[in-house]
Amino acid sequence: MNKLWGGRFQKKTNKLVEEFTNSLRFDQKLARYDCLGSLLHIKVLRKAGLINSKEFAQLQKGLTSIKDSIENGSFFKKIDLGFEDIHSYIQTVLEQKAGKAALKLHTCRSRNDQVSLATKLYCLEESKILIENLHKLDSSLQQLAEANNALIIPGFTHLQHAIPVRIYDYFFAYHQMFLRDKKRIEQTLSNIHPTLGSGALAGTMIESDCYHQAIENLSHVKITSPQSALDTVSDRDFVIDLLHALSIIGLHLSRLAEDLILWCTKEFDFIDIDESFCTGSSLMPQKKNPDVLELVRGYTGRLYGNYQSVMVMMKGLPLSYNRDMQHDKEPLFDSIEIVQKELAVMAALLQNITFKRDKIEIQLDDETLYATDMADHLVKKGMEFKKAHHIIGELVQYKIQSGQKIVDMDNQELSKVHPLLKAPELKKIIDPKHSVDSKKSVKKVKWEF
Amino acid sequence: MNKLWGGRFQKKTNKLVEEFTNSLRFDQKLARYDCLGSLLHIKVLRKAGLINSKEFAQLQKGLTSIKDSIENGSFFKKIDLGFEDIHSYIQTVLEQKAGKAALKLHTCRSRNDQVSLATKLYCLEESKILIENLHKLDSSLQQLAEANNALIIPGFTHLQHAIPVRIYDYFFAYHQMFLRDKKRIEQTLSNIHPTLGSGALAGTMIESDCYHQAIENLSHVKITSPQSALDTVSDRDFVIDLLHALSIIGLHLSRLAEDLILWCTKEFDFIDIDESFCTGSSLMPQKKNPDVLELVRGYTGRLYGNYQSVMVMMKGLPLSYNRDMQHDKEPLFDSIEIVQKELAVMAALLQNITFKRDKIEIQLDDETLYATDMADHLVKKGMEFKKAHHIIGELVQYKIQSGQKIVDMDNQELSKVHPLLKAPELKKIIDPKHSVDSKKSVKKVKWEF
Amino acid sequence: MNKLWGGRFQKKTNKLVEEFTNSLRFDQKLARYDCLGSLLHIKVLRKAGLINSKEFAQLQKGLTSIKDSIENGSFFKKIDLGFEDIHSYIQTVLEQKAGKAALKLHTCRSRNDQVSLATKLYCLEESKILIENLHKLDSSLQQLAEANNALIIPGFTHLQHAIPVRIYDYFFAYHQMFLRDKKRIEQTLSNIHPTLGSGALAGTMIESDCYHQAIENLSHVKITSPQSALDTVSDRDFVIDLLHALSIIGLHLSRLAEDLILWCTKEFDFIDIDESFCTGSSLMPQKKNPDVLELVRGYTGRLYGNYQSVMVMMKGLPLSYNRDMQHDKEPLFDSIEIVQKELAVMAALLQNITFKRDKIEIQLDDETLYATDMADHLVKKGMEFKKAHHIIGELVQYKIQSGQKIVDMDNQELSKVHPLLKAPELKKIIDPKHSVDSKKSVKKVKWEF
Amino acid sequence: MNKLWGGRFQKKTNKLVEEFTNSLRFDQKLARYDCLGSLLHIKVLRKAGLINSKEFAQLQKGLTSIKDSIENGSFFKKIDLGFEDIHSYIQTVLEQKAGKAALKLHTCRSRNDQVSLATKLYCLEESKILIENLHKLDSSLQQLAEANNALIIPGFTHLQHAIPVRIYDYFFAYHQMFLRDKKRIEQTLSNIHPTLGSGALAGTMIESDCYHQAIENLSHVKITSPQSALDTVSDRDFVIDLLHALSIIGLHLSRLAEDLILWCTKEFDFIDIDESFCTGSSLMPQKKNPDVLELVRGYTGRLYGNYQSVMVMMKGLPLSYNRDMQHDKEPLFDSIEIVQKELAVMAALLQNITFKRDKIEIQLDDETLYATDMADHLVKKGMEFKKAHHIIGELVQYKIQSGQKIVDMDNQELSKVHPLLKAPELKKIIDPKHSVDSKKSVKKVKWEF
Repeated sequence: MNKLWGGRFQKKTNKLVEEFTNSLRFDQKLARYDCLGSLLHIKVLRKAGLINSKEFAQLQKGLTSIKDSIENGSFFKKIDLGFEDIHSYIQTVLEQKAGKAALKLHTCRSRNDQVSLATKLYCLEESKILIENLHKLDSSLQQLAEANNALIIPGFTHLQHAIPVRIYDYFFAYHQMFLRDKKRIEQTLSNIHPTLGSGALAGTMIESDCYHQAIENLSHVKITSPQSALDTVSDRDFVIDLLHALSIIGLHLSRLAEDLILWCTKEFDFIDIDESFCTGSSLMPQKKNPDVLELVRGYTGRLYGNYQSVMVMMKGLPLSYNRDMQHDKEPLFDSIEIVQKELAVMAALLQNITFKRDKIEIQLDDETLYATDMADHLVKKGMEFKKAHHIIGELVQYKIQSGQKIVDMDNQELSKVHPLLKAPELKKIIDPKHSVDSKKSVKKVKWEF
Repeated sequence: MNKLWGGRFQKKTNKLVEEFTNSLRFDQKLARYDCLGSLLHIKVLRKAGLINSKEFAQLQKGLTSIKDSIENGSFFKKIDLGFEDIHSYIQTVLEQKAGKAALKLHTCRSRNDQVSLATKLYCLEESKILIENLHKLDSSLQQLAEANNALIIPGFTHLQHAIPVRIYDYFFAYHQMFLRDKKRIEQTLSNIHPTLGSGALAGTMIESDCYHQAIENLSHVKITSPQSALDTVSDRDFVIDLLHALSIIGLHLSRLAEDLILWCTKEFDFIDIDESFCTGSSLMPQKKNPDVLELVRGYTGRLYGNYQSVMVMMKGLPLSYNRDMQHDKEPLFDSIEIVQKELAVMAALLQNITFKRDKIEIQLDDETLYATDMADHLVKKGMEFKKAHHIIGELVQYKIQSGQKIVDMDNQELSKVHPLLKAPELKKIIDPKHSVDSKKSVKKVKWEF
Repeated sequence: MNKLWGGRFQKKTNKLVEEFTNSLRFDQKLARYDCLGSLLHIKVLRKAGLINSKEFAQLQKGLTSIKDSIENGSFFKKIDLGFEDIHSYIQTVLEQKAGKAALKLHTCRSRNDQVSLATKLYCLEESKILIENLHKLDSSLQQLAEANNALIIPGFTHLQHAIPVRIYDYFFAYHQMFLRDKKRIEQTLSNIHPTLGSGALAGTMIESDCYHQAIENLSHVKITSPQSALDTVSDRDFVIDLLHALSIIGLHLSRLAEDLILWCTKEFDFIDIDESFCTGSSLMPQKKNPDVLELVRGYTGRLYGNYQSVMVMMKGLPLSYNRDMQHDKEPLFDSIEIVQKELAVMAALLQNITFKRDKIEIQLDDETLYATDMADHLVKKGMEFKKAHHIIGELVQYKIQSGQKIVDMDNQELSKVHPLLKAPELKKIIDPKHSVDSKKSVKKVKWEF
Repeated sequence: MNKLWGGRFQKKTNKLVEEFTNSLRFDQKLARYDCLGSLLHIKVLRKAGLINSKEFAQLQKGLTSIKDSIENGSFFKKIDLGFEDIHSYIQTVLEQKAGKAALKLHTCRSRNDQVSLATKLYCLEESKILIENLHKLDSSLQQLAEANNALIIPGFTHLQHAIPVRIYDYFFAYHQMFLRDKKRIEQTLSNIHPTLGSGALAGTMIESDCYHQAIENLSHVKITSPQSALDTVSDRDFVIDLLHALSIIGLHLSRLAEDLILWCTKEFDFIDIDESFCTGSSLMPQKKNPDVLELVRGYTGRLYGNYQSVMVMMKGLPLSYNRDMQHDKEPLFDSIEIVQKELAVMAALLQNITFKRDKIEIQLDDETLYATDMADHLVKKGMEFKKAHHIIGELVQYKIQSGQKIVDMDNQELSKVHPLLKAPELKKIIDPKHSVDSKKSVKKVKWEF
């Protein structure tokens, strides 16, 4: 295959080595961004007088036609995977299209620089879609929350009944997580600075100003010449930051998935997931399994693994570029694709959930859910909280021992535990709506993404 | 031990369980922040009318005296490690100091809320010190860079000689990394919102406004009531974000360490590290090892491990608080302490490095370092870069085969490779200063942290 | 502090460096093994004629007395943490006890060799205790399984009701995991070969035979001279293998913990955990939380993190010993201590679990648990399984749509789904005991550890 | 698509869900093992009387023909990726070939069981190839070691000159690592027990004996009925153990790669790697980079990440099978393929390395390499080692200060450091061959894999 190097070599590359070093299999994902980069680079070369206007026109025409074929998909149908990487392959195609002018394309440019620019452009574009998909998921969640606005469920700590909460507030907690996810991606993006002009590691002979004058920015992406060429070709922080942000999205989704998996067990039975979002068993005819949620929960491992993969790869690498760094791409592409798929399927699944109010009400009947409210009630009567806590603890214990419901106890019986406990008052307190209404510390804010 | 719960329990906690669940061993690091939180909480209780002014005064006096003992260190000398956690222990001490009023401190507050607030305050304070330490390291680096401003070394890609670079530019690449590290911490900080008022998970009976009116902010930290109580007690994103930022600092330091370890080998011999920053061998009398750098490089593993540790712990946890989350603290404390130590020792070590210019010059004699410059030279004569690249590749090959230096070849000999190669021109090009001066694409910016 | 090196150094070690490189804080755990190693080493030195019999006696007496003080704990009370590491400290103590002879102890020995031997001895001893603790946990499990021998619960896949299973068989699955854990540790141990005689990396001037003749083995540990000195001082495979084995134990325990956490929710309510193994809430008086199980589940993250920590640290280290490798110890000690504690507390907790048969029976009433048995029934009548699977699927669907119980349907109604479905036969099949008794493929083996 | 379930479902699966749950993309790798499992299963069904001899013949013929098409590759050319998984797809193909009999194939079998068996068979087969490839690499290493038998290089600790070692011994250290790798894989294999008869989780109605009588083992693989059906479908220990073994191979290779990368720097210059195993730069004409070694070093990250990925995925999963576990396959396949490729390319690369003896000799001239030998020399004269160590340390210091070579010092000058230092003796000691010959503690063993 036509390589971008070779004059210094007298032997052919070993076959095993060609296969082992080949990255075209996966870096073809960067094809479009490689063309965009080259389209900018030729403007710089023109500005610097390193190509003439005819060469510029030939290169621009050639690159544009390749870019078009990438965008319409035809490029990938005839791609020859024997080439070393996407950059070598596009160079070869360009040589067929633009002739001798193409031999000038690589002036003052290294693949180290090219791949950094292309990967950054890829990250910027994918992240925008990520935020859109996050938004869609958040909207689905909001819809589900608002459609069940009045619904109260037992709140859990330690997966034990704690205090009743509104399902709206429950989902609002996930909304907060997604808001943080969005902000984390935005902050990551704000740190990605695509540049041209690093050369292999030391910069190029073209004046910095040439770059600045030549580079019209791609829609909203600002491209400049680098502040440090050495850092630019050595740096993969932006990949790692994104993998971190994706891992946390995976973490949040794994928690949502876990909650929903629990809620659709026979034992909890809080929700029903529509058949079209479940799968069955090849052996057990009755099965209707929440596979989507399990796969989402399980993908978390892969997202963490991909992060770890790049972190380990970068550890202890001397400056500047080392070939190890080629291994940043597969984990990056994998994590991005996983999360995009997850966001889409979860957004759809949330629209296919029904709450089973009768089953939830059975659990809300658990009187211990209101123990904190009862203690607060004693506090309002002037008792120290620590004492109130202890008394209600004893009441719960008495209830369990005696097998009675608190609402069935009269004042006389209650007074065995403490004289301040009054039947009519407790009856009012043991009520989901009373409980959630009595919580006033949370500042209500609008659901906005 | 005096626990914060118990009325509902009839049996004593099993001894093994007490030991297994004990967190006082490590969460005493939060002692100060726990007091700060309580000092705010009593203002809220006063505002809400849940304690009277006398109780407030007693509690404030008690808490302030505890806080003082923490700050002067006496608190830790008599600490009783048998208590469940720092919160239970401080409560007990307060009961001794403030009597009955102390029994009201826990009104409308859970440890879930308390620990979230204290951990956030800890993160905010430590991060400020982190940035200061980063600044010190960056200053040391700058000093070293400026003191060796004119020094040129071989630049490397793939750890092979690439193109000469200024040592200043080399260190400036690390400066860029540290700048990103600083920004990453700042962004992390900007996402930490300490709150009071989440209760166990559902908020409290105190009005949101009470919190806002009562809470005077701690110096520069803004504390509010939460937007989501459920999220507040369930969330450890801020711990993870910080562990991520610390891991990347570790990654950057591992690269710097690797470079310096290589440079002080007998084979590279670019630098000398002062004896006071090296250690010896118990067996080999001649040894002067760069142990500090190796330990820095090796700590990277622990920083990554701590991040993974918390990520894995959080994976798939249902809302809201689960006790698993107690395991966030040891990795967090460990990573912060490691990085603070690393930054300090590296800042000092950089001040104890001397460059060995004679040895570096030997490597700069390698004529292949100037191959790209020679190709650029042909390009300036109008040749296509790809062709120029090939010709210089052949020149290098010819040099190796013939065992000659390029600067010793005359025009006639050079013309065997290509007639455009001229001896006087090449001689000018094969020069470190000429090489670095010919790079013009990098926009010079000031070294500023 | 008295160092094991220094002649070549003219300056004192920098204070920051002393603190940063200090390992005595944690490697004092190896004190006993360091003495054991030295007690062997002096035999070798005697055999090789490098110390005389008087010196040998002095050293033996001194080392034995240090070893005794370690075993009775007095050693650690007066330890001076300013020393570099446990080896330097013991050397200094020995010099006080054995005088000039002590200056010969380090003949033909490096700390690289010493630390490898001590760490291996530590691993061997701790692993034996690990297996004992695993055995105790397995016995607790067996007891619980046998005490509830006849108990049947719903079996789950995807956390959905699948097919009834005996609780005995359920716990037997965990028994299988613990058996594998035991075998994994045993295999790890079988690969640990403690050696003496590697020197710094190149071996020593003492004949291999001297080692073999001199070394009486420590109880059951075989110590030899190395087959490769370079490998011995460079290798941490044994640490990593053990950390892997510990991580998998953690993984298994996290699953057991998860099952038990689910079972003691209000919704499942399959078990009760004794109060003495639960903890409460500082805010919610009713709370009785399974904290032990949550902490066990959460520790998994730390075990994984410790494994990664050492793996990352070792990545890409050139041969032979590098100081990075000092960082193997803290993760190793931490993981071993965590798992030892977990095994102990879980063994005790399992003895404090009660099954709530009435609540379990409610779930066994779920007729869909017997769908596979019904399909098998049709298969026995000659129907293709795939068809039978489909028919029973329809029966389940019919049941749900009609809101009827299958056991309440008569032949006529059943024939609407399929004529082969007969009411008396289905009634017999819809029975937990019938279901578990009908499973015959599993080869029964005794519960043996 | 034809699913293995459905009677219970009234709606079609959502398109997004079909795509999200699809595993055929990657689990087609298990196709052959799925057929092998089915070929055994039909024997069991025949034995149990659940299919007749005609049906058996039809199924056997159909399955054999599918297996043949898999082995000759034609199967994969027409595969329809719309199917849920490889098991569903093969079922459908079989129905076309074997008609109604195929509807009986799934009797008493679940995919949970099927996938466990197929994955175990895959692991067993791939591991055999792994060991063969390890053997090839080890042989290449041995060849290189033996071809350079007499060659001595500086040994390193902390990447600083330590003591001379034979290159043979150096490579022998890696041989020891590969031996451990082999043993680790063998131990992992010895713990893989492929079984049939677990059903979904509870076993099947077929007698255990039927399985034992029916199952003729596949060449050397022993298949039995399970000891615990619940464990069998829940367990992925074997995947994790293999991923661990692969990670450690990656770790060892990363160290070998690092050493070789260092050795082919201009600064070390110990080796030359043949051009056919290097690649060049698109910008720098002189470049001949050791990319293969860098990619090997970098792959370590991915191997660790894949291990972590499955560990995280399994954490905290309740028994028995959960769909999360589908995510075990991609990391497993990826790690196996990476290591197989690495072993092959490294075996070839080692055959293309040449040592540059002249450059190595320059480094062996470093007299400090013999400092330990000089100290040993004083020990043999009766001096305490600690004192000898100090004196030689001073000698090294004196050498550095005075800028002299030790071999150029006469007795008088040496006596300034210590009177026992004699010029002729030191001259003999300062010699690579003398140094390596003086090391006698290592028990020589044959190089055997």
